[in-house]
Amino acid sequence: MPPAFPKAEYEARLAKVQAEMARRGLDALVIGDPNSHNWLTGYDAWSFYTPQIVLVQHDAEPIWMGRKMDGGAARFTTYLTDDQVRPYPEDCVQREGVHPMDFIGASMAELGLDGHVIGYESDTYFFTPKAFTRLQAALPSARWQDADLLVNWCRTIKSDAEVEVMRQAARLVEGAMTVAYETIAPGVRQCDLMAAVVAKQVGGNKDFGGDLTALSPLILAGEAATTAHPMWTDEKFVAGQTVALEFGGTRKRYNAGLARTVQLGAGPQRLFDTANAVIEGLEAVLEAMKPGAIAHDVHRAWQDVLDQYGLTKESRIGYGIGVGYGPDWGEHTVSLRPGETTVLQANMTIHVMLGMWLDDWGMEMSETTLVTASGVECLTTYPRDIHVVT
Amino acid sequence: MPPAFPKAEYEARLAKVQAEMARRGLDALVIGDPNSHNWLTGYDAWSFYTPQIVLVQHDAEPIWMGRKMDGGAARFTTYLTDDQVRPYPEDCVQREGVHPMDFIGASMAELGLDGHVIGYESDTYFFTPKAFTRLQAALPSARWQDADLLVNWCRTIKSDAEVEVMRQAARLVEGAMTVAYETIAPGVRQCDLMAAVVAKQVGGNKDFGGDLTALSPLILAGEAATTAHPMWTDEKFVAGQTVALEFGGTRKRYNAGLARTVQLGAGPQRLFDTANAVIEGLEAVLEAMKPGAIAHDVHRAWQDVLDQYGLTKESRIGYGIGVGYGPDWGEHTVSLRPGETTVLQANMTIHVMLGMWLDDWGMEMSETTLVTASGVECLTTYPRDIHVVT
Repeated sequence: MPPAFPKAEYEARLAKVQAEMARRGLDALVIGDPNSHNWLTGYDAWSFYTPQIVLVQHDAEPIWMGRKMDGGAARFTTYLTDDQVRPYPEDCVQREGVHPMDFIGASMAELGLDGHVIGYESDTYFFTPKAFTRLQAALPSARWQDADLLVNWCRTIKSDAEVEVMRQAARLVEGAMTVAYETIAPGVRQCDLMAAVVAKQVGGNKDFGGDLTALSPLILAGEAATTAHPMWTDEKFVAGQTVALEFGGTRKRYNAGLARTVQLGAGPQRLFDTANAVIEGLEAVLEAMKPGAIAHDVHRAWQDVLDQYGLTKESRIGYGIGVGYGPDWGEHTVSLRPGETTVLQANMTIHVMLGMWLDDWGMEMSETTLVTASGVECLTTYPRDIHVVT
Repeated sequence: MPPAFPKAEYEARLAKVQAEMARRGLDALVIGDPNSHNWLTGYDAWSFYTPQIVLVQHDAEPIWMGRKMDGGAARFTTYLTDDQVRPYPEDCVQREGVHPMDFIGASMAELGLDGHVIGYESDTYFFTPKAFTRLQAALPSARWQDADLLVNWCRTIKSDAEVEVMRQAARLVEGAMTVAYETIAPGVRQCDLMAAVVAKQVGGNKDFGGDLTALSPLILAGEAATTAHPMWTDEKFVAGQTVALEFGGTRKRYNAGLARTVQLGAGPQRLFDTANAVIEGLEAVLEAMKPGAIAHDVHRAWQDVLDQYGLTKESRIGYGIGVGYGPDWGEHTVSLRPGETTVLQANMTIHVMLGMWLDDWGMEMSETTLVTASGVECLTTYPRDIHVVT
């Protein structure tokens, strides 16, 4: 398999990052986020549980630095050449008194980076306090500048090729939701529903398969419906339950999310009333989304609808979504909520997530959306009504 | 669903951690590793992608601090009471200029912890440099002591109840491997094999279902066989391929790993020769494992066999395994390799992982093992020969 995108795509991404580095006066950037490794180079392996970085400099190709047994994955998932792959030895993995970042830091020093201004990500998964301390020790004269989310913000606006892949991810999650609708019933174990869902997420369709999703698939049923991210159990669904389902579809590591709510048999009127308000709120949000719209104004459109129905929701109603390994498919950039001044731009992809977690029940509804030249398009297309299983 | 274990189990675990804290002179311990949150309290939710800690003190019950929308999961997955659950507000999640650790730090200050000796984990996923900096700012007079892996080492020796759950995890992965053997064939897409595998991992059997495994399931086929952690693709298996499969089974978040190798049709003699050496090496390793054995001696037993066959393997041949969310099921404690002085003890669980990644092909063989009172037991039981699909 070649890398997910043509070489020119990765070159354009690198140029974007280098331009932002130049603007900030960074000589080099240490990228710790494996999602960004994939985005910037195509590198794709389940190897980020040991320390791994991509180093970006000006007038140089990016360099992957990671564990020796994983360096081979660069050969068939990226366009990196052998001198752009610098592995550290196996015997420093999870061993007391030594750390892979000692080797990575020494490698950076060899490249002449000590004494330079180096950006790092202060708040990304998998780049730990110790990793940072060891790098600093290896490059004692470097000036370290927090460049958290620099690459994430570069990732927010998708290329047309990325949008195409996210459309495929949307097809995968629609398929998974259909399987869930066909499978769920009183007496079915939650784990058996989930088995059918993950099989569809991964097996995909005749044209393409999928990956595991960055966010674990979620079933909110019974007592678990009052909280946002519960894990499934062996319990059987029971008649009368309201069940919220939040799944993804993931294609070439790009995620599309979709949440819907199912009612097993007769449901309480409050459910249908709330669903109607949420659907109306969603329509108002979609109406407000377009290039130039400000994130807090999009949220205001939602809040105006909720106010009419006396409903409240404390958490944000949407966030940037895209390339991602676990545990999160959010990009940690755009958030739709009060006080956010981010201006929406064409080709941003946003998971509009309207989860209502109330005192003793809950429901969810979401769409993965694409900001277009003039408005918004739902990449996920699926009936929005509460699905009643009779 | 009640928590995974009886209350007394969690009380014993807490006492273990508090004893080690006392030995090190720690007044409090900030635990960032979600695997340890689960181990110590039972807390189980896919919520660790936003900052979340468990705080342990002496003469006090542990306290979970995390995102508001996730606090509810503590109600039905733990024995924590309402005053042991301290959520931070939604609007500080992934917002510039504010950080959840500001709230967590303020909460710790309220508990009177400023000026005290506080342990933290310097090298765990999900506890970032910024998280640490913000905590330090909120508790300016605290003395911070690196207590990385303190809880992980407490986790190495399993209770009998944990062993029972790991036996169930072993049943799950055996089931998944059988499904893989039944499904794999030339012409089958890798994603379709994986769909069948994850469905079995999650759906389990009639007695119990499973979770997603902490380590992504892996297929090493074709060019990807030369590296350790490649991701599956849509490609079809082809006749003549050697395919290594590394899967887990996960029950109540406890993982058991199992790797085997499949040959599609006639295979090269080097494969069967290498497999015979590896099987002999595995038997030597199992012979050497018992309470009192030293990790490097166990590795020596393996190396002695490899030396006879002129084979080399740079990476470690085993590591502690147990409770874990992604991305790793290893405990980051025991490693079987040269120079490791860890003494094996009864009820340690170790994934003996014999991956041979050679220049242009590879194979794998592994067992999840339990150190017993007098030797070792394989929790996974599965034929070890190369499975030839004819």
